[in-house]
Amino acid sequence: MKTAILSVGTELLFGQITNTNTVYLSQQLNMLGFDVMYHYTVGDNPQRVAEIIQLAFKDCDLVLTTGGLGPTQDDLTKEVACRVLGDELVMMDDVLEELTAYFKKNGRQMTENNKKQAIMPSRAEIFRNDAGTAPGFALEKDGKYIICMPGPPREMTRMFQKSVLPFLQKMSEDVIYYRMIRFFGIGESQLETSLLELIDSQTDPTLATYAKEGECSLRIASKRRSMEEARAAVDEMLSKVQGLVGEYIYSSDDEELVEVVCRKLLEKKLTIASAESCTGGMFAAALTDIPGISGSFQRSLVTYSNEAKMDELGVSAQTLEKHGAVSEETALEMAEGLKAVSGCDVCISVTGVAGPGGGSKEKPVGLVYIGLICGERKLCKRIQMRNVSRKWNRHYAVLSMLDLINKNI
Amino acid sequence: MKTAILSVGTELLFGQITNTNTVYLSQQLNMLGFDVMYHYTVGDNPQRVAEIIQLAFKDCDLVLTTGGLGPTQDDLTKEVACRVLGDELVMMDDVLEELTAYFKKNGRQMTENNKKQAIMPSRAEIFRNDAGTAPGFALEKDGKYIICMPGPPREMTRMFQKSVLPFLQKMSEDVIYYRMIRFFGIGESQLETSLLELIDSQTDPTLATYAKEGECSLRIASKRRSMEEARAAVDEMLSKVQGLVGEYIYSSDDEELVEVVCRKLLEKKLTIASAESCTGGMFAAALTDIPGISGSFQRSLVTYSNEAKMDELGVSAQTLEKHGAVSEETALEMAEGLKAVSGCDVCISVTGVAGPGGGSKEKPVGLVYIGLICGERKLCKRIQMRNVSRKWNRHYAVLSMLDLINKNI
Repeated sequence: MKTAILSVGTELLFGQITNTNTVYLSQQLNMLGFDVMYHYTVGDNPQRVAEIIQLAFKDCDLVLTTGGLGPTQDDLTKEVACRVLGDELVMMDDVLEELTAYFKKNGRQMTENNKKQAIMPSRAEIFRNDAGTAPGFALEKDGKYIICMPGPPREMTRMFQKSVLPFLQKMSEDVIYYRMIRFFGIGESQLETSLLELIDSQTDPTLATYAKEGECSLRIASKRRSMEEARAAVDEMLSKVQGLVGEYIYSSDDEELVEVVCRKLLEKKLTIASAESCTGGMFAAALTDIPGISGSFQRSLVTYSNEAKMDELGVSAQTLEKHGAVSEETALEMAEGLKAVSGCDVCISVTGVAGPGGGSKEKPVGLVYIGLICGERKLCKRIQMRNVSRKWNRHYAVLSMLDLINKNI
Repeated sequence: MKTAILSVGTELLFGQITNTNTVYLSQQLNMLGFDVMYHYTVGDNPQRVAEIIQLAFKDCDLVLTTGGLGPTQDDLTKEVACRVLGDELVMMDDVLEELTAYFKKNGRQMTENNKKQAIMPSRAEIFRNDAGTAPGFALEKDGKYIICMPGPPREMTRMFQKSVLPFLQKMSEDVIYYRMIRFFGIGESQLETSLLELIDSQTDPTLATYAKEGECSLRIASKRRSMEEARAAVDEMLSKVQGLVGEYIYSSDDEELVEVVCRKLLEKKLTIASAESCTGGMFAAALTDIPGISGSFQRSLVTYSNEAKMDELGVSAQTLEKHGAVSEETALEMAEGLKAVSGCDVCISVTGVAGPGGGSKEKPVGLVYIGLICGERKLCKRIQMRNVSRKWNRHYAVLSMLDLINKNI
């Protein structure tokens, strides 16, 4: 079904906010098998909103809107959608009751403006708002559908997952099942090349690759008559993919690498500590982004200066002088020193040249050594990154640390 | 002048990338005094691109496009723009020469496809591409202007700054000068309230507030006959703003707070170290994101567990037991221990409840203590954050640390 996404909000036209709603909806709709043909953004102006909806319906049978559903004067998407699809607004008592209960529960005063939010198109299917006050809705006329959702991303995504997604699935006779497989250590083009035969010979399941900041993903999707059929087709394809590039897969369920590592550490009841130089605390920051990781993560010693490396980790002045701060020897001494002070099960260290300055012919920007002590194992990995930027080098170093842990615990 | 922005690219409709070009261009155009009325996105389809351009010209006199200028089959914006504005494509020898030189310099083979990039609309003003191969251009007919730029953000923003911006400035008789003032410790609505009289009584300079993850900004912009006049008007307004809310301003030149702090540390030749608990390395990661900060930043001890706080920083078991890890006493002992091991000029510590779990009635999620030793001064600041989310709490704690340093060095 041909689909358009319309974002309503003057703040978007000012460039005050980035339109993440449209990205999210585009991904979701494509996965469900809808063809997204247009993105539109207009300000809070009823005439222009109406014109764009009419224009979209010339080519499309489904229009999704975000924004303009709030209680204030300039929120007018509901009125316009209702007018374009020939319906009238009526007060819905059950919606009003829920709104009243919401305000009471949150100890907030309910103004006349807020009551306006319970007035909905008479033929609409109403979508509750779990994260705010403005309900959304779907309205149809002569096979043309409009689905209106609130603008704040948190409200929109929750409403989409809970109400709009099932509504759209009902619109389609087939069911779609997909899995997102996540890779590290292989580039998107190499992944595509490795899977070329599978990609070219398949109509269902479909395979699509995505690249994202040093990692890549593969979506395996199947559209069948039943969920069982679709699931079986996807899982069969997944085994084929695993046979070809299994060594690079770290998740078959769209988990982040840091989530996978933290889950494993907690499951295995392993404690972890880090000693960071070039990543400057980013490794620890990534781990501690996961709630509950205090059950495993104990400390990180961010030893940026040579003095700190000697003080905190007992790296020898001789090693630093002879081999330099960026060397296998220093990385290993950092990990050993960390093991001595922390006693943690997993001790990981990193030292490298993040750039843009500080590189040399022998040790160019992007060179990183990662040391790891894990049970009986002690190892050091040397990585020469592509040196896209300081930001990227540091980010990729953290991913490499997580990958090394993931493969060794 | 009424303006529309058109993004061309099927990858946008798939949700594979976020449309940052449109945010950038919207901001720039608004600052230049152009009224952005619409954002459109269509795929690489010549008919739909043509329809949208024609539609935009019904209401607007200027259309900016990004994407679809490359050398491949599906790059067609140039052809379409040329057709809609009644021009013809011709080979431009000087552009071809530059392209040839570019390929030679980069040791790359120039294919027939690439030569196609030197074919341009005959009446167009050409914009060189500093960061890639596809040139951009401006084309006019009967007072309607189209400006076409490449899609990759790096190429587009450089072309905009270097060529499109001066072109647009020529289109306007007036010049615009603006400054972005940045604030911490005051919310957007409070800022607006404090400046209400200035905002309401002014037509030029204009004042606009923006909120961004715990901080807010104020844009002061003036549109005058000369740059001198505009600059004087903005600076006069800035002094008025400083008189009202000066204590919250950390930059009058759109610098990030971390940039301001790092610049000051390096200028004053002060060394710095941190001891982090709830921020888990994020403070150090923020500082080390700035190239050259190794001249000041020495180490961060991320002491997540109580044991680490005792081992690394000498926090006493008694203090932890009596007052808890999240307390003024612990924050101060962390800073003192850090001073003892690092000897740095500025020693900052942080301990708090990041959430979502771990809060209590006495110490709710979002409570943070920051300790600071700086020269003779030793202080501790208690902050109770709004507890938006774990992510936000940690982010706001880092900003609060930077703010405390900024005000005390």
